[in-house]
Amino acid sequence: MALPAPLHGVIPPVCTPLGPRGEIDTASLARLVDHLIDGGVHGLFALGSTSEVAYLTDAQRGTALETVLKAADGRVPVLAGVIDTTTPRVLDHARTAAALGADALVATAPFYTRTHPREIAAHFRHLRTAVDLPLFAYDIPVAVHSKLSPSLVRELAEDGTLAGLKDSSGDEGSLRRLIVELGGRTARHTGPAPGFTVLTGSELTVDAALLAGADGVVPGLGNVDPAAYVRLYDAGRSGDWEQAAAEQERLVGLFSMVDAGPEAEMGRSSSALGAFKAALHLLGVIDGGTTAFPQRPLSEEAAAEVGRRLSAAGLPPVR
Amino acid sequence: MALPAPLHGVIPPVCTPLGPRGEIDTASLARLVDHLIDGGVHGLFALGSTSEVAYLTDAQRGTALETVLKAADGRVPVLAGVIDTTTPRVLDHARTAAALGADALVATAPFYTRTHPREIAAHFRHLRTAVDLPLFAYDIPVAVHSKLSPSLVRELAEDGTLAGLKDSSGDEGSLRRLIVELGGRTARHTGPAPGFTVLTGSELTVDAALLAGADGVVPGLGNVDPAAYVRLYDAGRSGDWEQAAAEQERLVGLFSMVDAGPEAEMGRSSSALGAFKAALHLLGVIDGGTTAFPQRPLSEEAAAEVGRRLSAAGLPPVR
Amino acid sequence: MALPAPLHGVIPPVCTPLGPRGEIDTASLARLVDHLIDGGVHGLFALGSTSEVAYLTDAQRGTALETVLKAADGRVPVLAGVIDTTTPRVLDHARTAAALGADALVATAPFYTRTHPREIAAHFRHLRTAVDLPLFAYDIPVAVHSKLSPSLVRELAEDGTLAGLKDSSGDEGSLRRLIVELGGRTARHTGPAPGFTVLTGSELTVDAALLAGADGVVPGLGNVDPAAYVRLYDAGRSGDWEQAAAEQERLVGLFSMVDAGPEAEMGRSSSALGAFKAALHLLGVIDGGTTAFPQRPLSEEAAAEVGRRLSAAGLPPVR
Amino acid sequence: MALPAPLHGVIPPVCTPLGPRGEIDTASLARLVDHLIDGGVHGLFALGSTSEVAYLTDAQRGTALETVLKAADGRVPVLAGVIDTTTPRVLDHARTAAALGADALVATAPFYTRTHPREIAAHFRHLRTAVDLPLFAYDIPVAVHSKLSPSLVRELAEDGTLAGLKDSSGDEGSLRRLIVELGGRTARHTGPAPGFTVLTGSELTVDAALLAGADGVVPGLGNVDPAAYVRLYDAGRSGDWEQAAAEQERLVGLFSMVDAGPEAEMGRSSSALGAFKAALHLLGVIDGGTTAFPQRPLSEEAAAEVGRRLSAAGLPPVR
Repeated sequence: MALPAPLHGVIPPVCTPLGPRGEIDTASLARLVDHLIDGGVHGLFALGSTSEVAYLTDAQRGTALETVLKAADGRVPVLAGVIDTTTPRVLDHARTAAALGADALVATAPFYTRTHPREIAAHFRHLRTAVDLPLFAYDIPVAVHSKLSPSLVRELAEDGTLAGLKDSSGDEGSLRRLIVELGGRTARHTGPAPGFTVLTGSELTVDAALLAGADGVVPGLGNVDPAAYVRLYDAGRSGDWEQAAAEQERLVGLFSMVDAGPEAEMGRSSSALGAFKAALHLLGVIDGGTTAFPQRPLSEEAAAEVGRRLSAAGLPPVR
Repeated sequence: MALPAPLHGVIPPVCTPLGPRGEIDTASLARLVDHLIDGGVHGLFALGSTSEVAYLTDAQRGTALETVLKAADGRVPVLAGVIDTTTPRVLDHARTAAALGADALVATAPFYTRTHPREIAAHFRHLRTAVDLPLFAYDIPVAVHSKLSPSLVRELAEDGTLAGLKDSSGDEGSLRRLIVELGGRTARHTGPAPGFTVLTGSELTVDAALLAGADGVVPGLGNVDPAAYVRLYDAGRSGDWEQAAAEQERLVGLFSMVDAGPEAEMGRSSSALGAFKAALHLLGVIDGGTTAFPQRPLSEEAAAEVGRRLSAAGLPPVR
Repeated sequence: MALPAPLHGVIPPVCTPLGPRGEIDTASLARLVDHLIDGGVHGLFALGSTSEVAYLTDAQRGTALETVLKAADGRVPVLAGVIDTTTPRVLDHARTAAALGADALVATAPFYTRTHPREIAAHFRHLRTAVDLPLFAYDIPVAVHSKLSPSLVRELAEDGTLAGLKDSSGDEGSLRRLIVELGGRTARHTGPAPGFTVLTGSELTVDAALLAGADGVVPGLGNVDPAAYVRLYDAGRSGDWEQAAAEQERLVGLFSMVDAGPEAEMGRSSSALGAFKAALHLLGVIDGGTTAFPQRPLSEEAAAEVGRRLSAAGLPPVR
Repeated sequence: MALPAPLHGVIPPVCTPLGPRGEIDTASLARLVDHLIDGGVHGLFALGSTSEVAYLTDAQRGTALETVLKAADGRVPVLAGVIDTTTPRVLDHARTAAALGADALVATAPFYTRTHPREIAAHFRHLRTAVDLPLFAYDIPVAVHSKLSPSLVRELAEDGTLAGLKDSSGDEGSLRRLIVELGGRTARHTGPAPGFTVLTGSELTVDAALLAGADGVVPGLGNVDPAAYVRLYDAGRSGDWEQAAAEQERLVGLFSMVDAGPEAEMGRSSSALGAFKAALHLLGVIDGGTTAFPQRPLSEEAAAEVGRRLSAAGLPPVR
C-alpha cells in the first residue's frame, strides 16, 4: 500500500513471539498483529529492535515479516527493519523486504565498523537508490554507537533520500532542533521537506514529542497497550495536552514492568523484552513469553511482578 | 531569604562577564543580574556550569557569588553552585557560599574519581548535614560522566537530603519516570516528597518538561532572553501549551547562535559560552564577550553571525 | 587440519581484495594467501575485521573463506571469523564455516544488543556445543562495545569452552592479568587451561605481548609485511628481545601509513583498510585497492603517501 | 633540586595516609616517604591520583606536599600534581607547589568542561610560561575523559613546553607511536626532543613499557613494594628482559589485592586505594588504612584478604 506522507500516529515495533525452542510462533504473531490493529494503531514496524531482530536468522526474519504482512493484510502500512552492519548486508535484507511486500524500509547507520558521517550519508543514499521503497533512518545510538546529527538528517530529508526518521536517540533537544530547522511544529509540512515523517521511539515522552511537532511514535510498550498510545496520540492531535500528559503518565507507570527482572542478573534488553512478552502472554495475546537466546528468561517471580503491574494499570491478566 | 518549596519558574545560570585579562567584570555582572530580574526570572543560579565556574579560581568564585547576591539584593533567591571533585573540596565551597549568604547549594556527583552510587548518596548526605542550606543535586553526566539514577534521587528526595534536582542529563525519559514515581505531574507535591523541586536544564525542551510536571527551568540561553523563558513558563503554568511550544520554538531558533563558532576550531563549550556572551555584549548588557582561558574566543565573523541571529529573533543588537 | 594447542606464531587477518564493483577478487585473494604463507606465517584468520567482514554479504563471506581455504591448501590452519549480532545468527555462519572446512571459529560477544556477562558466557558455550570446532573469543570492544573480563575468559578457558582468545581490546593490563591467572608466561601451558591460546591483535606492541607470554599475534599490518612479523615473533621466541623490539619499531613506523587518509574526510577504519590495500596493490600482490562501500576510497595523493612510507620501510612499490 | 632530563626510574605516586577523621597523618606520610626511598625509588610523585588528590582540600594538598618534600629532603626529586578543572585553577596549585619547593609540575588536560585540542595545547603552554618549573603532561582519560594524542604531545615536547609525559591512558599502541616518532627506543634522546621523559602509569606492563623505550614508571602499587619495581626497572635497564618479566608477573599477582573489596559494593577507585592503604598498614608503614570520604572503607574481611595476598607475595604482614 502507498505510505502516507507524512506517516502519522502510532506505529508499534512488533514483538516476535517465540516457541520453546526459539522458533517463531507465527500463530501468536498473527494474533499480536490483530491485537495491535484492534487497538487502533496506524502502522506496524516489523523487524525493529523490539522484534529481537538482532537475534533472528535471515530465515526467521523472512518468516516474521511475511507473517506480519499477511496478518496486517493491507489494513495498515508495514515498515520493515533492515538491520545489519553495513550497506551491502543491509541491501540483502532490503531486497527481501521489498520482495515480501513491505511498504517502507527502516535502516540504521552502519555498526560494528567506525563510519564517517559522509560515509553514513552515502549509505542511506545508496539504499534509497537501490531499492524503490520509502526509506526511514533509524537513529539508535545505544545500539549502533553513533548519532545521526540534525544537519545530516536535514540534508537527507531535503534531497529526498529519507522519507522519515525514527528517533530512538533519546536526545530530545536535537530532535527539537531538527523539527525547527525543517519549518517548525505547525509549518514543517510546508517547509523544505514537506512530507518528511518524524517518529519518536522514546515511549516515555510521547506527549512532549507530539507537542514538539513529531508525527507519531514507535513505542515498544505499545505492544502491550496499543489503545493507550492511540488515546495519547489522539489527545495530542486534538490539542488536549493535559489529557495527553495524563495518558503518558499512566504509560510511564506501566513501563516500570521492565524493572521486574533484576539488573544484577540479566541485561536491560532482556528484562525489557522479557517483560513485554510476559505481559502479552499474561494478557492472552501470545502463547508464551520466551525471549531469544542468549537472553536470560524472566524468573517466575519477575513474571508475577509483571502481572501485578498490569493489574495496577487496569489490564488484568487472563492467565 | 527562605527558599520556596518547591522552587518554581525560570532560574537562569548566570554568566560571568570577564574583562580582557580574565578578571571578573563586576559592574557587567551586576547589570546582567538586573537584566535577568527585569526579565521576570524567579531565581538565579550562580556558579553553575554556564558561569564558567570550572574556570574560576576560588577567589573569583567568591567575587562572582558576592556580586550576584548583592545585585539581587533579596529580590529573588540565589542558588550557589559548589562544583568540585569530591565531598571535602565541595564542602569548602559550600561553607563559603553559606557565609556569603546563598539561599541554597547545588552540587554534582563526584568527578575525576570513579564513585559508586552508595558513595554518591553518602556524598550528598554529608553535604546536607554539614551545611545548613537546602541542597540541590545537579545531574550533568556530560561533565561528571556519571548519571544520577531516578531511584537514587528518589531516595534522597524522600529522606529530605535533597530539596531538589537540577537535571541537565538530557535523559527526559528518566526524568519522567522520577516525576511519576514521586506522585506524578499533578499530585507530586502531595506525594512522598512534597516540596521537592524538579528543574530541567534542557533549555530546548522546556515546554515538554513543564508538561511533564517539572517546576521550572535553568536555561543558559535565559541569560540572553530571560523574558522569553518567563513567557514560556507562564504559558505552561496557565495550561496554554500551544503558546508554550511556540515560545520554545522561537528559543530553539535563537539557540542556534551556539553554532556560530566553527566546531573544527573550538570546543562546543567555548562556542556556546562565547555566543551567549557575544549576544549579551551586542545587546548592551555586558561590556565584553571574553570567555575564560583556555577557551578560544569567537572570531569577529562568528560574533557578527550571533548578531544576525539576535536580529532574526527580534532582539536587535545595540552595538 | 588439526589445530595446534596452543596455536602460536603469526596469524594475519587476511584482507579481502575487491574488484571495482565491490565483487571479491578471488585471484588477488589467492595471491595474498601465497604472499602471507611465503612470508612464513603460522596460520590465517579469514573473515576477521580486517577482511571487511562487516561489509561482506553472506555469499561473499562464503566466497572469501572458500578462496582462502583453497589457496592455503592445508599448508597452515585457517581460522574463520563468524561475526554477527547474536548467537542464532553467528551459528548460521559457524555452520557454513564448518562445512567449508575451516579449522577453528572466532566469535565476538553479541553486539547491537546489550548483553549481560552471564548471557555472553552462554553465547560462547552454545556456539561450542553446536559446532564441533575449536572456538576462539574475539575481544574487540571498539566494534562490539563491551569488554570480555579476564575472569570470564578464564572461566571459559578452564571449562574447555574456548580454545583461545584473540585480544583486540588494547587493554594490555587485563591481558597480563589473564595470563598470570592462567599460570604465567612460562608455566601457563601446565596450568589450569594448558593448551589455551592467547593471541594479541595489538599490532604495535607485539614484542610486549610475547614477552608477557602471548602465543602469537594477529596483525592487520601483517598483510603488508608478513615476514617482518615472523622475524619479530622468532626473535621473541628465541629470547632476543632487543631484536624483537627493533623489528617492532620498524613496523610501528610502517604502520603510520594509516594516517595517509585525512581524518577529517574519512573514518579511521576506511583510512587504515585503504592504506593496507593500497600498499598490497603497490607491492603487486593484489590488483586494486578498492575498499568496501560505503567506505571512502583513499585519494591518489594518499595512496602516493602510502607508497612513500613503503619505500621508507624498505618495501619499494613495484607499480 | 634540578630535575634530570630525562627523569628515569621508579617514581611512585605517593599515597596520603589519613587519620580516622580524614585528617592527613603526616607522621605516617613521612614514614611512607622513607619506605619508598629506602626501596630505591628514583623520585616521588606527590598529589597524583593515587594520593587521593581529588579528595584533598587545598589546605590538605599543601600539607601533603610539604610533608613529602620535607621527608624527601632532597634525596630524590619530587614532582607535584596540580590537578584541577582548568588553567586558572591549576595555576593556583602550581604557584603553591612552586612556593613549597616542588621540583616539577604534573598537570592533566582540563576536565568537567569539554575542551578542544588547541585549547588543551594552550592550557599546557600557559602553565609552562606562568610558572618556572619543568612541566609533565598527565594523560589519564579515565579521569578527565579525553586523550592526549601522540601528535599533540609530540608538538609540546618538541617546542619545549613539556619536560615529559606521565601516560596513564593504558593505550600502549599510542605510546609506542609517540616514542617512535620521537626517535625510537635507542635514539630518542638524540631526537627532536632529546631530554623528553616518558613515564608509564600502567603498573602491570612496565617491562613492556621499558622495552618500548619508556624512561620510567609511576606505579601505584609501588607504594606497597617499591623495591620490586626498582628490581624490575634495573632488570630492564640492564637488558635482562626475562628477569624484568618475571618481576612484573610477581607484581601482577600482588596487584590482585585491588579485587579484595567487592565490586558490587564500592567503586573501583575505593577498592584499589583501600587495598594499597590496607597493605601499607599491615606492613607497618602507616598507622591506619582510612581512605578519603566518600569512598567506602574496605571491610575487615577484605583487609584480611589483602593480608593473605601480601603473604603470598613474600611480604608478610607485621600486624
